[in-house]
Amino acid sequence: MIRLPEYREVCKKSLEMIDEAGIRLTLEDRKKMTAVDFGLSHIEKEGVQILTMFETDRIAGKILVLLPNQTEPEHWHPAVGDDAGKEEVIRAISGELYFYIPGEDNMKHGFIIEGKEDCYTMRNEVVLQPGEQLVLPAGTRHWFQAGEKGAVMYSFSTKVTDLQDQFTDPNIVRETKIGNL
Amino acid sequence: MIRLPEYREVCKKSLEMIDEAGIRLTLEDRKKMTAVDFGLSHIEKEGVQILTMFETDRIAGKILVLLPNQTEPEHWHPAVGDDAGKEEVIRAISGELYFYIPGEDNMKHGFIIEGKEDCYTMRNEVVLQPGEQLVLPAGTRHWFQAGEKGAVMYSFSTKVTDLQDQFTDPNIVRETKIGNL
Repeated sequence: MIRLPEYREVCKKSLEMIDEAGIRLTLEDRKKMTAVDFGLSHIEKEGVQILTMFETDRIAGKILVLLPNQTEPEHWHPAVGDDAGKEEVIRAISGELYFYIPGEDNMKHGFIIEGKEDCYTMRNEVVLQPGEQLVLPAGTRHWFQAGEKGAVMYSFSTKVTDLQDQFTDPNIVRETKIGNL
Repeated sequence: MIRLPEYREVCKKSLEMIDEAGIRLTLEDRKKMTAVDFGLSHIEKEGVQILTMFETDRIAGKILVLLPNQTEPEHWHPAVGDDAGKEEVIRAISGELYFYIPGEDNMKHGFIIEGKEDCYTMRNEVVLQPGEQLVLPAGTRHWFQAGEKGAVMYSFSTKVTDLQDQFTDPNIVRETKIGNL
């Protein structure tokens, strides 16, 4: 659950960060800004802001925003029906961005949310500077975090199947519930 | 056929336009800049510059650059084997960009290359301002042209099948041949 004023505040802040990153948005785009708290009710710690630029039956393009030190929880995109699972390419636009994927533990820049070691099991760190990109094949377990400046990135992918995403944290609910006050 | 000095010149100019558009590129990205003359040997009239950011078996992301008044010839992405044909989303970043797709003739801003009326048969004009986008379902016949300032855009798509592209102009050869001098 996220309260409406907080929801509006993180969306507003995220749009400002996209503007500062130099990405041109139409008015129609701006209305599409959303925030996801994963049902954990502390969006500034664990959450993400998403602006879907386009989404068809075959491909999608989104802008993702992380506020300073915000963390998107560990998850993966499983095969669904005939689909092999969502393949995703992240392209960093601005800020400081750390990805964690399968591989040896070389974690240096980011941090694990206190008491949630079991929910963040990938420790192979990939630092993405603006302009750098990372391909995440279907099924790749991953989580990511912004540094002190926050981060703006593109996410390009095959067909979106977000509601089928699998999370390491059993307390996560993918759909965001917005409370009135 | 395009001469090497001209090839280098249009690639250099296109990278400058990408920089001016505010898109951050890595050094590795910069090396991927290519130019396509479609075998017509007058690239500044008919041609396009392409920087492939990523290309997997399922999706691709490119930056396309048109020089001032440059035109990408009319073509479409047919079904190939099991693939329904390349679906493409264009997102305008900077400059002046006119797309021509199926529909009523409402052509106003662009022009037809002299004597090539039969090679540019789509006359339904869509003007894309920076930040605006256009979805091109597989098989959609289209061509596009920049205004006096040129244009920079993203192209996101399903699997790339460029060498299977079909062109209205029978003289087109998709592979660019570069002459030594």
